[in-house]
Amino acid sequence: MQEDRFTPPPGAFTRSVPIRFSHCDAAGIVYFPHYFDMFNGLIEDWYSEELKRDYASLVMGNRFGFPFVHIECDFKIPSKMGEVIDLTLLVERIGRSSLSIVIVCHRDGLIRLRARMVTAMMSLETRKPLPLPEALRAAIEDYQRKTAT
Amino acid sequence: MQEDRFTPPPGAFTRSVPIRFSHCDAAGIVYFPHYFDMFNGLIEDWYSEELKRDYASLVMGNRFGFPFVHIECDFKIPSKMGEVIDLTLLVERIGRSSLSIVIVCHRDGLIRLRARMVTAMMSLETRKPLPLPEALRAAIEDYQRKTAT
Amino acid sequence: MQEDRFTPPPGAFTRSVPIRFSHCDAAGIVYFPHYFDMFNGLIEDWYSEELKRDYASLVMGNRFGFPFVHIECDFKIPSKMGEVIDLTLLVERIGRSSLSIVIVCHRDGLIRLRARMVTAMMSLETRKPLPLPEALRAAIEDYQRKTAT
Amino acid sequence: MQEDRFTPPPGAFTRSVPIRFSHCDAAGIVYFPHYFDMFNGLIEDWYSEELKRDYASLVMGNRFGFPFVHIECDFKIPSKMGEVIDLTLLVERIGRSSLSIVIVCHRDGLIRLRARMVTAMMSLETRKPLPLPEALRAAIEDYQRKTAT
Repeated sequence: MQEDRFTPPPGAFTRSVPIRFSHCDAAGIVYFPHYFDMFNGLIEDWYSEELKRDYASLVMGNRFGFPFVHIECDFKIPSKMGEVIDLTLLVERIGRSSLSIVIVCHRDGLIRLRARMVTAMMSLETRKPLPLPEALRAAIEDYQRKTAT
Repeated sequence: MQEDRFTPPPGAFTRSVPIRFSHCDAAGIVYFPHYFDMFNGLIEDWYSEELKRDYASLVMGNRFGFPFVHIECDFKIPSKMGEVIDLTLLVERIGRSSLSIVIVCHRDGLIRLRARMVTAMMSLETRKPLPLPEALRAAIEDYQRKTAT
Repeated sequence: MQEDRFTPPPGAFTRSVPIRFSHCDAAGIVYFPHYFDMFNGLIEDWYSEELKRDYASLVMGNRFGFPFVHIECDFKIPSKMGEVIDLTLLVERIGRSSLSIVIVCHRDGLIRLRARMVTAMMSLETRKPLPLPEALRAAIEDYQRKTAT
Repeated sequence: MQEDRFTPPPGAFTRSVPIRFSHCDAAGIVYFPHYFDMFNGLIEDWYSEELKRDYASLVMGNRFGFPFVHIECDFKIPSKMGEVIDLTLLVERIGRSSLSIVIVCHRDGLIRLRARMVTAMMSLETRKPLPLPEALRAAIEDYQRKTAT
């Protein structure tokens, strides 16, 4: 089906992940919580490499937190040890303090899984939501624009 | 709000999980992929203790797999190291080979997070869907009936 | 061999851990880093339940850290999904700020694996070693005495 | 001290690992079981990239297992989120079916931690030890020779 195919838009942030022994369960395929860990790693790299905001400094320095408030994920094709999968990050919606991200996991043009993850920026000190800082918001909007499909 | 409160229906399968050092991130709260690991553990225990089907035998003996095809989760209240949270499993819908489960994570009557997870039984040998065996289906239907809200 | 048998001394702190799907690798046996996570959980429970010092408060309240400086482990018998293993904690040596612990993982009187883990108490603020507080030291000495073999 | 300094011998297999949010505990430093997971990943990559034996095929195809029989590790300097550490693999001793590996984790010439890990090749079918296949042994001996210090 058409909806199972995916080509990242030009400029989209994509990273490859090798499926390791440690990702796999007794069936030799990825144990699903590991995907969410991969997604978090992708988001970290996107902040640091694409948005040029060092993720570790945001968390440990600024004491910003990015907890998820909503996650949904459709799993279509399992991934096996030794395969390499590609993860592409797209921005769906930018709120005042929230950010809705889509992560597509694909290989050879076929979608393996697809997640929508909504995060809300907060202060790790007060545990209250924080509006996205203006410069960060602008950088995310730029990324959203250049990867719009 | 009313929708944030939860009391498990009588007979519902609930297990308590202590939040450990290893679950927590640099903010001292649960790193979210660990919740999905807890959910998988709850489902295992539900099979073994409530449905009286040893999960390990289903997987390693019968070579049945229970991969997830869809997951959605709303995170409402973070959980901190040293807290104990309760996880309750409810059955939403039983298909031919699929099963839709709701897991509510709560404490003191308040919902911390709530997930809907759809699994589809398959053969680990052929990687094809399998219809739920009749006895297993009957046991799940019994559980659904007795915990209907 | 005699050295592969183990009976916990009276009063020793022992907890049972079910081997779950998520602990196991593509060979259906525990992926070894999970053992270290189980050991950390055992130590947490030992602090809270045996020594009556809430581990979460020590870390998040007092800002004490208990990093490991040395670990060694002999793996004798693998553990499979569905098995339940017993973990017993013994105290080997109490230093000024260091503590040497032995953890024996066993089942049916046979040693599965055996670890020696040396931790050194430190301040999470200054990252410097701290002498073990007197009351904590006394509690650990009591435990060591009552479980001496 | 001299013993805390390390320069990889020429030709040694070294991979860099970024310390991620998910590696870190409530103190913002790596939770130690993650190191062992990193080590396993390094060994996988060493098999595939240096020895030219695809690790996934060895496990899933040949049904070879490489369980650890002994591990020891000295932790010297903690690693923090956002840092990048280097892992270098050296071969210490090649037995009939066993292999003793040293992994040095370092940064800026200073040792962060150092592990010795002994693995014994086995059949995942019979669960019995297997002698290292001749070609694999030869490749490991070559590597040992070229990285001898």
